[in-house]
Amino acid sequence: MASAYANLLPANGKWKQQITDFLTEDVPSFDFGAFVVGNKVETGSLYMKQAGLICGVPFAAEVFKQCELEVEWHYTEGQYVTEEELKAKNGKIVVATVKGPASKILLSERTALNLLARASGIATQSHITKKLADENGYTGIIAGTRKTTPGLRQLEKYSMLVGGVDTHRYDLSAMVMLKDNHITSTGSITKAVQSAKSVCGFAVKVEVEVSTEEDAREAIDAGADVIMLDNFKGDELQKVAQSLKNHYKNSKSFLLECSGGLTLQNLSTYLCNDIDIYSTSSIHQGCGIIDFSLKINPN
Amino acid sequence: MASAYANLLPANGKWKQQITDFLTEDVPSFDFGAFVVGNKVETGSLYMKQAGLICGVPFAAEVFKQCELEVEWHYTEGQYVTEEELKAKNGKIVVATVKGPASKILLSERTALNLLARASGIATQSHITKKLADENGYTGIIAGTRKTTPGLRQLEKYSMLVGGVDTHRYDLSAMVMLKDNHITSTGSITKAVQSAKSVCGFAVKVEVEVSTEEDAREAIDAGADVIMLDNFKGDELQKVAQSLKNHYKNSKSFLLECSGGLTLQNLSTYLCNDIDIYSTSSIHQGCGIIDFSLKINPN
Amino acid sequence: MASAYANLLPANGKWKQQITDFLTEDVPSFDFGAFVVGNKVETGSLYMKQAGLICGVPFAAEVFKQCELEVEWHYTEGQYVTEEELKAKNGKIVVATVKGPASKILLSERTALNLLARASGIATQSHITKKLADENGYTGIIAGTRKTTPGLRQLEKYSMLVGGVDTHRYDLSAMVMLKDNHITSTGSITKAVQSAKSVCGFAVKVEVEVSTEEDAREAIDAGADVIMLDNFKGDELQKVAQSLKNHYKNSKSFLLECSGGLTLQNLSTYLCNDIDIYSTSSIHQGCGIIDFSLKINPN
Amino acid sequence: MASAYANLLPANGKWKQQITDFLTEDVPSFDFGAFVVGNKVETGSLYMKQAGLICGVPFAAEVFKQCELEVEWHYTEGQYVTEEELKAKNGKIVVATVKGPASKILLSERTALNLLARASGIATQSHITKKLADENGYTGIIAGTRKTTPGLRQLEKYSMLVGGVDTHRYDLSAMVMLKDNHITSTGSITKAVQSAKSVCGFAVKVEVEVSTEEDAREAIDAGADVIMLDNFKGDELQKVAQSLKNHYKNSKSFLLECSGGLTLQNLSTYLCNDIDIYSTSSIHQGCGIIDFSLKINPN
Amino acid sequence: MASAYANLLPANGKWKQQITDFLTEDVPSFDFGAFVVGNKVETGSLYMKQAGLICGVPFAAEVFKQCELEVEWHYTEGQYVTEEELKAKNGKIVVATVKGPASKILLSERTALNLLARASGIATQSHITKKLADENGYTGIIAGTRKTTPGLRQLEKYSMLVGGVDTHRYDLSAMVMLKDNHITSTGSITKAVQSAKSVCGFAVKVEVEVSTEEDAREAIDAGADVIMLDNFKGDELQKVAQSLKNHYKNSKSFLLECSGGLTLQNLSTYLCNDIDIYSTSSIHQGCGIIDFSLKINPN
Amino acid sequence: MASAYANLLPANGKWKQQITDFLTEDVPSFDFGAFVVGNKVETGSLYMKQAGLICGVPFAAEVFKQCELEVEWHYTEGQYVTEEELKAKNGKIVVATVKGPASKILLSERTALNLLARASGIATQSHITKKLADENGYTGIIAGTRKTTPGLRQLEKYSMLVGGVDTHRYDLSAMVMLKDNHITSTGSITKAVQSAKSVCGFAVKVEVEVSTEEDAREAIDAGADVIMLDNFKGDELQKVAQSLKNHYKNSKSFLLECSGGLTLQNLSTYLCNDIDIYSTSSIHQGCGIIDFSLKINPN
Repeated sequence: MASAYANLLPANGKWKQQITDFLTEDVPSFDFGAFVVGNKVETGSLYMKQAGLICGVPFAAEVFKQCELEVEWHYTEGQYVTEEELKAKNGKIVVATVKGPASKILLSERTALNLLARASGIATQSHITKKLADENGYTGIIAGTRKTTPGLRQLEKYSMLVGGVDTHRYDLSAMVMLKDNHITSTGSITKAVQSAKSVCGFAVKVEVEVSTEEDAREAIDAGADVIMLDNFKGDELQKVAQSLKNHYKNSKSFLLECSGGLTLQNLSTYLCNDIDIYSTSSIHQGCGIIDFSLKINPN
Repeated sequence: MASAYANLLPANGKWKQQITDFLTEDVPSFDFGAFVVGNKVETGSLYMKQAGLICGVPFAAEVFKQCELEVEWHYTEGQYVTEEELKAKNGKIVVATVKGPASKILLSERTALNLLARASGIATQSHITKKLADENGYTGIIAGTRKTTPGLRQLEKYSMLVGGVDTHRYDLSAMVMLKDNHITSTGSITKAVQSAKSVCGFAVKVEVEVSTEEDAREAIDAGADVIMLDNFKGDELQKVAQSLKNHYKNSKSFLLECSGGLTLQNLSTYLCNDIDIYSTSSIHQGCGIIDFSLKINPN
Repeated sequence: MASAYANLLPANGKWKQQITDFLTEDVPSFDFGAFVVGNKVETGSLYMKQAGLICGVPFAAEVFKQCELEVEWHYTEGQYVTEEELKAKNGKIVVATVKGPASKILLSERTALNLLARASGIATQSHITKKLADENGYTGIIAGTRKTTPGLRQLEKYSMLVGGVDTHRYDLSAMVMLKDNHITSTGSITKAVQSAKSVCGFAVKVEVEVSTEEDAREAIDAGADVIMLDNFKGDELQKVAQSLKNHYKNSKSFLLECSGGLTLQNLSTYLCNDIDIYSTSSIHQGCGIIDFSLKINPN
Repeated sequence: MASAYANLLPANGKWKQQITDFLTEDVPSFDFGAFVVGNKVETGSLYMKQAGLICGVPFAAEVFKQCELEVEWHYTEGQYVTEEELKAKNGKIVVATVKGPASKILLSERTALNLLARASGIATQSHITKKLADENGYTGIIAGTRKTTPGLRQLEKYSMLVGGVDTHRYDLSAMVMLKDNHITSTGSITKAVQSAKSVCGFAVKVEVEVSTEEDAREAIDAGADVIMLDNFKGDELQKVAQSLKNHYKNSKSFLLECSGGLTLQNLSTYLCNDIDIYSTSSIHQGCGIIDFSLKINPN
Repeated sequence: MASAYANLLPANGKWKQQITDFLTEDVPSFDFGAFVVGNKVETGSLYMKQAGLICGVPFAAEVFKQCELEVEWHYTEGQYVTEEELKAKNGKIVVATVKGPASKILLSERTALNLLARASGIATQSHITKKLADENGYTGIIAGTRKTTPGLRQLEKYSMLVGGVDTHRYDLSAMVMLKDNHITSTGSITKAVQSAKSVCGFAVKVEVEVSTEEDAREAIDAGADVIMLDNFKGDELQKVAQSLKNHYKNSKSFLLECSGGLTLQNLSTYLCNDIDIYSTSSIHQGCGIIDFSLKINPN
Repeated sequence: MASAYANLLPANGKWKQQITDFLTEDVPSFDFGAFVVGNKVETGSLYMKQAGLICGVPFAAEVFKQCELEVEWHYTEGQYVTEEELKAKNGKIVVATVKGPASKILLSERTALNLLARASGIATQSHITKKLADENGYTGIIAGTRKTTPGLRQLEKYSMLVGGVDTHRYDLSAMVMLKDNHITSTGSITKAVQSAKSVCGFAVKVEVEVSTEEDAREAIDAGADVIMLDNFKGDELQKVAQSLKNHYKNSKSFLLECSGGLTLQNLSTYLCNDIDIYSTSSIHQGCGIIDFSLKINPN
């Protein structure tokens, strides 16, 4: 069943046109197999074959719809299927049942599966990471990055959300990130923040990447919403974070971010609650997929 | 430097429009950071930070071109960068130097890197798998599958090629694959092959998935070009393969394929030279990426 | 009625977007006539006014669907309507009945007719050619070429299929064709075939154009799937074909193709069964059309 | 050389995007042949191999440009190449010389040729028809129709122009054509013309199809710009035409059109100068093509 | 309720794709508000809050349709809502009621309103101008210009029609307008008209801009359909117009146009019936909008 | 001259494709006038004919570039041209000089002018409003709204920036705005804010519309970044604003916004510095345009 997450996607828009493009990518000219298999109405089972978080339902649903198939979902977007549940069902659960001409079920197969596999892979990795962070007492935000697959940022950021992590800024038109080049070209952190605010306005946040506490203070004073603490080593990171939080306790709102290097392995020793946000591409870029398959049911 | 592989991509076409779409995905409206950093001409270094096979150069080159940047490549598409080389250069080598306005270098950054990371990840995994197969004495073909990222099949199949493996059929309009549903709906393997050939013609190959030697023979007799041996266990697979090769030695040309389950771990015990093709999505779906970065050079 | 051929076209994809583009081509801004004629629901008769093979039904059906019309087909895709049948119906048969607002029937008219006229023209010419070849005892394949109308290759290759001839390779990404330039640039036929196979893989066929038997042998030995015999005169062609077939009887599978020059006039003296494929653009390029019309029925 | 006709096509616009689509149609994924032939710079000769009117130069030029080739044209758009000229050059003249990487010359080949063949076919047929009409003393207009290839109307209407005939109305948004359905639905010819003019305004012409002189008069009185005389037999047509011209000599401007049935064969007995326009799809739909080829020059 | 004007828009075409683009413009990635508000089915009222002519119904209707909402219209396209009617309903009337998930009503809101506001603003200004002209005894045509919003010409020309004024030529491919540059480059008005007619043919009108009566005569004699009288001052304009009308009374049909400078303020002293057309962009460019809003009804 | 604002637009992307679409909108098929005027190289002057702020230069520049024209800008984006300057130059200043074939200058004319007129109209209105607010001692932000022309939001938000006002949130994917429906459906302001933050994350701001001080406090306590004070009358607005600012002085950062009703006329009595942001669509929707023209220079 499609969950509330589906509301994040507009009723019509580019994402539906992309689904059409994906189908065209798989059948640029003729669907020879469809000619052979014919149009007899069949039902098909969409199987999940690996433990993980189910994600990508609205995208797969749109594939089925464009292939003129009916679909009934037996599991919900964001549901976690455990190893035990899988074993109890001989290693595969029926996530959904599709119905329609055999030719159209087979047409939908690969595109729907490729989307679900990737979405669920990211959601699962996000979920596991977030859960481990929670268990380690981290109360802040785990976030992804802009290191997404070109053309699929919406699907991948969506999968992070379903997996329980923060999507971070969506693109270069969203939150502004000021780094050394921006600062050098304008002359100072203060000028860079002012320059950014003169165009991004009150509705868009500004983040500044700094490598000293002094720079962090200049950025906060200049009105930065988020401070990226870069290159601080071990205890120093925590010390600077605490110092900044204390200093501005009654005057300024800002968030502290730390990026890169976070993995499932080092997470327990890595996280500290003085940092509001840890961002990492490990939850979505180059992470594994979840295996799904779609089979026409025997009559 | 772009290699001969770049010739696989047409001088103009959808893939260049996709690059424009990818840039739009990253800047749907305004590029606030570009306003801040300004148009001063700078050079930037494109670093590779992980051992692996460099792949994706023509795609990244098109990103740079559309961002109106000059680029000089110091490494060639398909070149393998070893751990040792990386260490000798403090963990990162300069793959290319880009030149142009700072605003445009930063605009190109994320899209170029995301493409290179994924392409090189697939090419590297393909290369490692192929090499290990070679070292284990396998003389046949390692091939990928259609389990590619929607919208990026061309990049991913291209990366398989650069990594030294076979792309397998590109889409449903290329080689026809007949499975149980096709056979059931037409009545027999022979009829399914005839039906396929009546539309796909002499220029397109036909593959049939079989689970008994008898079925394999029917498929070969009917004119199938490739036989997918499905569900054969261990020695039986090899036995059937040999039997088929012997039987048709002087009469029919066909290839035997075995799909699924192949991993870097099981590869040495898995491969046998009676099978012409082992196909696996493990070389491109859910495999890791190679880390690249792009930094504006200090003046 | 739409036949099994309709299954060759995917449920959604670029071809449906093209139909929208075609309608936009005919009404870039306002449909003044539609304003005048109004929205009264009428029925219209789609007439075929010339003997030939009915072809293009799924394309016309999509035009009617996008114009929000109901349609009932009285003839089937691929049905041959003879001169006699036409005469018996005063020179025009009702292929289909459409129903809907007059404004929308008139909107659909020109686009639907232009597609049917062209598709049926090609299917008819293909059918006639194939039939004459059959009657002359030719048992091989008559095939079209890539000399199709830009933007309409799918429709035209589809029409060849409905007309009973082979579509030949669909595009440059399908079967590889190696000619003198490819051979010169690589140094030999063998090297050209190897080069092609290194990228096109096992799933894509390779054809080589040769002008001597020796070259044909080199190509076959190198693994070419199809040999194009070029520039052989009369009896020599047959002699070389027989010689090659004999030589490789028990060792290699390959097809022999002969291209160009085939016309309905010379066909009886032209074809020989030692050649597997005769390809010709005369069946689809610059061939005539079949006349259709669409009239709103009087009340 | 591109002639003044090229100015009819805007510097940028949909027609250039269509050329990109046509190239993509021919290489949806990989150009294997291009990989084999490589990037050595060569020159190629574009040959015309049949007598006729050269047409389509701006379209072919755009193909070459998008394939990053230089081109030098030796003949001009609209130039007529006679049988004698062809014979003097052994049956083929070099229309243009292209220069660039072999891979890109071969990429451009099929798309450029398919466009030239069709455009020149239409221009030639138009030219021959117009010339014969002139020679038979017809001083009016020969025009095409809207029976053009979907997606290629611009090319085909352009080719009519180069061939010397009138394009007639471009689409349903151009000149309004009122037929029996429009008249029935509004109640009278007068009301139909008024209804059309209320939306098409003063800038768009209105044509009315009539089958009696009385109706023609009503249409002219209502302000129709063009009268289509439908279903008049032989002498009656001429009689009605003369009567109308006489009647309105000093009061109304209008044109008389006669459509359909005109062929090269019946033209001499068909045309009369009381009719201002004869429109026929025989000059562009289902007419022959002119044969062109593109060969890489031997070094 | 959609009126007959809706028939001017084709059942399918670019304008519907534009609506999808407009929705994508407002939700490039996620619709966060939709997630919050959820999918409970609600009704919403579309209010008109300013006196004026209702226009844009088919465009808003398409927005609602693409957002999967039902809509019932209580007012008709082209209906004029007076100040009195508004006051009687406390300053806002319910133009339509939409029904569907709250998330989708809110999604449709801004795009539907922005289209209605602009369309109704233009239709209202057109209506007021036309009405005032009528009241001042002007019997000719008030027309708009090509000074429309890029991308929205169809909506804006449509709004002129609903407002009762003439759309004038739609684009550069419609009626040809010859100005001083065209005349200078060809050598004379006569040559410019001939040149235009040689390509635009009989179906497209030609207008010539002139600044002396002598030039006007040359243009009319050369076959111009419309004469734009430029730069004539006050009484001279009327004198020239009368002179031309008299001179050609029994020989030529043509229209006289006067452009620019017309405003609601000067209209009464500006218009004279010897001029057939006054064109002005004041009715559509930079004119005000009509205020609409869309509110979910309280339960 | 293009200013730093041009950096806000990416080197390539959808906005450039839109320019191509705009040109196609003006020449859907043939440019007859271009044929007549020919390709002689001319220069043209782009005139500004009304006092105001020059805006839209990068968009017009792209039009000229796509029309293959050279352009030299004599004024800079964002420069204010006064009535006095205009008068001193006889009512029109030369903003830019374009050079190229006459046919292409005329092709670019209407699209370039329509973009400049609208952009400069908005920038001018924004500038005047901002300046008047400044002069009245208002130190906060004047902002636009999402009531922009569908398809042109980027141009219009850009014009606000050049005019010196804040663009407010760009679209529904940017800052989240929670109104009564969101609050009702979730049960409370606090829950609505939490729901929004669970998906929009730390990078996107949340605004809440409230009508009591109590609700404002709940929203601020829940973490809202911006509070829209709705329906407060006169002094009460100021009182509530001050009360909120005092209460949260040392604890929370938030902005207070007031929307609607602001006009140039009421501005002096309307603004108070306790409100951080006044947003109004009067600066961009239905505001006037600035008149530009483009004339080919006499030789």
